[in-house]
Amino acid sequence: MNITIVGIGLIGGSIGIRLKETQFGEKIIGVEKNEANAKKALQLGLVDEIQPLDDAIASSKIIILTVPVDAIMNILPNILDKVTDQVVIDMGSTKTNILRLIADHPNRGRYIAAHPMAGTEYSGPEAAIPNLYKDKVMVYVEAFKTDEDAFERADAMTEQLEMKTTFMTAEEHDMHTAYVSHISHLTSFALALTVLEKEKSQGRIFELAGSGFESTVRLAKSSPDMWTPIFKQNRDNVLEVLEEHIKQLQKLYTKLDKEDYDGLHKLIKKSNKIKRIIK
Amino acid sequence: MNITIVGIGLIGGSIGIRLKETQFGEKIIGVEKNEANAKKALQLGLVDEIQPLDDAIASSKIIILTVPVDAIMNILPNILDKVTDQVVIDMGSTKTNILRLIADHPNRGRYIAAHPMAGTEYSGPEAAIPNLYKDKVMVYVEAFKTDEDAFERADAMTEQLEMKTTFMTAEEHDMHTAYVSHISHLTSFALALTVLEKEKSQGRIFELAGSGFESTVRLAKSSPDMWTPIFKQNRDNVLEVLEEHIKQLQKLYTKLDKEDYDGLHKLIKKSNKIKRIIK
Repeated sequence: MNITIVGIGLIGGSIGIRLKETQFGEKIIGVEKNEANAKKALQLGLVDEIQPLDDAIASSKIIILTVPVDAIMNILPNILDKVTDQVVIDMGSTKTNILRLIADHPNRGRYIAAHPMAGTEYSGPEAAIPNLYKDKVMVYVEAFKTDEDAFERADAMTEQLEMKTTFMTAEEHDMHTAYVSHISHLTSFALALTVLEKEKSQGRIFELAGSGFESTVRLAKSSPDMWTPIFKQNRDNVLEVLEEHIKQLQKLYTKLDKEDYDGLHKLIKKSNKIKRIIK
Repeated sequence: MNITIVGIGLIGGSIGIRLKETQFGEKIIGVEKNEANAKKALQLGLVDEIQPLDDAIASSKIIILTVPVDAIMNILPNILDKVTDQVVIDMGSTKTNILRLIADHPNRGRYIAAHPMAGTEYSGPEAAIPNLYKDKVMVYVEAFKTDEDAFERADAMTEQLEMKTTFMTAEEHDMHTAYVSHISHLTSFALALTVLEKEKSQGRIFELAGSGFESTVRLAKSSPDMWTPIFKQNRDNVLEVLEEHIKQLQKLYTKLDKEDYDGLHKLIKKSNKIKRIIK
């Protein structure tokens, strides 16, 4: 059984390394339109060979899509047109629009929407690492619409990645990821812009930056090519959470502005409840 | 030479462990009004003994203040009243107000304003760790107003902590820390409040939280007793940076709201310049 990975960056490349390590499948085939990245992926051993998309589809049993979500929207219907008994796994970070797009496709049953909750702020084939997925959560969305055998083949692949699994509706998935992933990126982007702006008038401003700053700003290194489409595809949820986040910042602002230090202390103490969630 | 540490939590306790490790000074004396913390500090070996403040001042050559900044404002003038040839090091996170407060004190020369750019989101004596300060930056503020011998004694202590040093004015220090430390905490507090709020209606919302979320929200575990006084003492700068940060978030909001994806892509790309600063 051959496996095709479409898009060999951080996400796809890390799957490639790991599946080669566990020898799941005979050949790992990469599809990559960026020639420099295709070359690098081969050099780094992330895939066994690079093929054109149509050839790769024809010769594989599993086709994994790890390109940005807008690219998935573009190519998925055409890929589904061409499959017979393959399973197509979409690994994108948003699900509602894509599921709507292919809802009535005759080969809908060969498709599974999945989202591995794993990643780093780096991108490209050089960023791929073998243990990216270990012990992380794979979310399956609307899995009951996938053919039984197709789901089982996809889930066998997920097992190779040593992931835990969970099931959600598309609406749940997109709202939850807006709150625990997408907003974190927006707040990092904004924080980086804030400080970079100030640096223009205050050259030494980064001299005192420590681990706290680094921690809150590191996601601002993330790729705009990956994240702009995510925000686009999950626009309503992202706007909702962003509005709420701005409201919370304004609350903190008002307490400080009005010198209501008891109120400020209470808000901070309330936020400390996050200890329940993260160790 | 004995050394007194006033306030044996994360910051003071970590100094205590390290100075005992390097055998700098004969005795490390702790001053701690919270009895449970005093007991724990002794049990953990962070200090050699606990003494009342006045006794500790009388028998020490170095007095290090590691209580919250409002407590430093309260006790520093009284401590300076009682010193003769000691050096008093204030380790607080804000400097302008404290320096104004003791500007005309007859023992001004025995005092040095210092700020170690190190910490974690944990607090209390159990949070103390021996290498907290290694390779981090100690900022000296208005050091030229400190007596030569007092500064040298303080700096010898800083060397024991294996820190790098830098010099700033109070205005520079308070503005820079607002931008690269205080704002990171506010944004984490707000992010935690945002998601905790949503959890009330969406129980499973933290199920998908991964390392990106954890990274941006971990500072929300920080102590309100430490941070409320910092925001109070650095109010003008914090309000300025918070206003700018909200403005940047609103810019991102508007781009997304108006579906200006080119504009959104450009802003994200611009924020990526943070790569220059953090590896």
